[in-house]
Amino acid sequence: MLTKQTLGYEAAEKVASWAAEKAAQMGVPQNIAVVDDAGHLITFRRMDGAKFFSIEIAMTKAYAAAGLRVATHVVAPKTQPGMPGYGAQALNRGKFTTLGGGFPLVFNGAVVGAIGVSSGTVEQDTEVAEYAARRFNEEFQ
Amino acid sequence: MLTKQTLGYEAAEKVASWAAEKAAQMGVPQNIAVVDDAGHLITFRRMDGAKFFSIEIAMTKAYAAAGLRVATHVVAPKTQPGMPGYGAQALNRGKFTTLGGGFPLVFNGAVVGAIGVSSGTVEQDTEVAEYAARRFNEEFQ
Amino acid sequence: MLTKQTLGYEAAEKVASWAAEKAAQMGVPQNIAVVDDAGHLITFRRMDGAKFFSIEIAMTKAYAAAGLRVATHVVAPKTQPGMPGYGAQALNRGKFTTLGGGFPLVFNGAVVGAIGVSSGTVEQDTEVAEYAARRFNEEFQ
Amino acid sequence: MLTKQTLGYEAAEKVASWAAEKAAQMGVPQNIAVVDDAGHLITFRRMDGAKFFSIEIAMTKAYAAAGLRVATHVVAPKTQPGMPGYGAQALNRGKFTTLGGGFPLVFNGAVVGAIGVSSGTVEQDTEVAEYAARRFNEEFQ
Repeated sequence: MLTKQTLGYEAAEKVASWAAEKAAQMGVPQNIAVVDDAGHLITFRRMDGAKFFSIEIAMTKAYAAAGLRVATHVVAPKTQPGMPGYGAQALNRGKFTTLGGGFPLVFNGAVVGAIGVSSGTVEQDTEVAEYAARRFNEEFQ
Repeated sequence: MLTKQTLGYEAAEKVASWAAEKAAQMGVPQNIAVVDDAGHLITFRRMDGAKFFSIEIAMTKAYAAAGLRVATHVVAPKTQPGMPGYGAQALNRGKFTTLGGGFPLVFNGAVVGAIGVSSGTVEQDTEVAEYAARRFNEEFQ
Repeated sequence: MLTKQTLGYEAAEKVASWAAEKAAQMGVPQNIAVVDDAGHLITFRRMDGAKFFSIEIAMTKAYAAAGLRVATHVVAPKTQPGMPGYGAQALNRGKFTTLGGGFPLVFNGAVVGAIGVSSGTVEQDTEVAEYAARRFNEEFQ
Repeated sequence: MLTKQTLGYEAAEKVASWAAEKAAQMGVPQNIAVVDDAGHLITFRRMDGAKFFSIEIAMTKAYAAAGLRVATHVVAPKTQPGMPGYGAQALNRGKFTTLGGGFPLVFNGAVVGAIGVSSGTVEQDTEVAEYAARRFNEEFQ
């Protein structure tokens, strides 16, 4: 049997709250999704004013970051035209993205979950998700 | 232009919290989803121990209750064999359910959102969602 | 080569308008879809107040009526438990329904299109679609 | 509760009619879709001769413009190879496009709906949708 550690609701909600604080400071309402090590959603919130269009995108960023085990934007260069990963975004029935804003949450060297943020520019989304992931590292390491 | 009212994040989170309190009292961890008047997700939480399998089901219950404008279980009898609604569950690419646990949230006579609960028995899911919808009525009417 | 007749936009819009008139008389706002002989959408309207949930259902009723070449509710008995058509609603990725409210539009003995109506009760939807189909017969035969 | 304004059927049909007039002048039959602020379809028409293949594309353009809150073609440069949004088209299960021909409809500073046009070249589709969106601005501001 294998033993694994994974994010619980309380920690996931903390991560989402950090992201929401950052987004509020930036004045950009966001969709915020946090998933566990298996990519399954633990918590989601759409701040008032965030785009409905980005609900599923936030979830997909979190899912991809948990699955890829690195931040989503890190994989982007490998999927450019001419690269071996070209076309990867069409995999997993679309639950694959390399847009910035997905970050894994690492604890004791293992990915225990991930956060995905979407509704602003890719840069804004990335800034918010990265902030929340860093706060997670500070709090839980 | 038409003017309509819809649930915001703060109210949606309250509804989810009421559902979570009730679920905790019952000792049955739940997936809890709250959507707006258009069926778009506002908030979601998976309590520790709730089934991953029921994440999407909770969302579908909320979506269907917002869309049908009545609690999901109310529609069930009309979809039984021999009834005019037989087979309805296959519609909307599976975003249609008559399982108990989906309740519309009504404000000023209009559906402004809905809650969906899933992970326990259908009876338990229904009890939790109904409790949260009742608390919404008491607080916001 | 085969020659076929199919509904054009002008006739389709007339059919939709008859349905809308009937729905307005009944005081039940409706989603109304009209498709051609191939099941492809020609015109759609959502009357103010009609359920967003039933947008795709109206289209599915029209699609199924064009495809089955009979009114959708006529097929329902053949799909009941124990009958040879049991489970048919899951076919065609869900673009199959036996709910009342889908009627073929027949011209010169051939199905040239179909209408689908959804947002009220199945009985109301059926009444509206049937009325529009009858008006089509009177106007175009 | 949040209060918002959204497009009704009458205004949506006007927008579609302006698009159809423009398309007729250009001699290019079009698929024309108008959605509300939540991306839900209000009205659709396929002009005689328009491609069946572009029915869903017109709807997707409208959905994406309502969701992105800008014209679809505006987002295209950000999704080119090497750009942060590269691969975005695979998101939202394909309900994401940056093809020209999707324009948001803005009223009192908020997106109340969107129009999507598809069947001609991307340039033709864009011209028609932009014309209808401009007429909307003149009529409703």
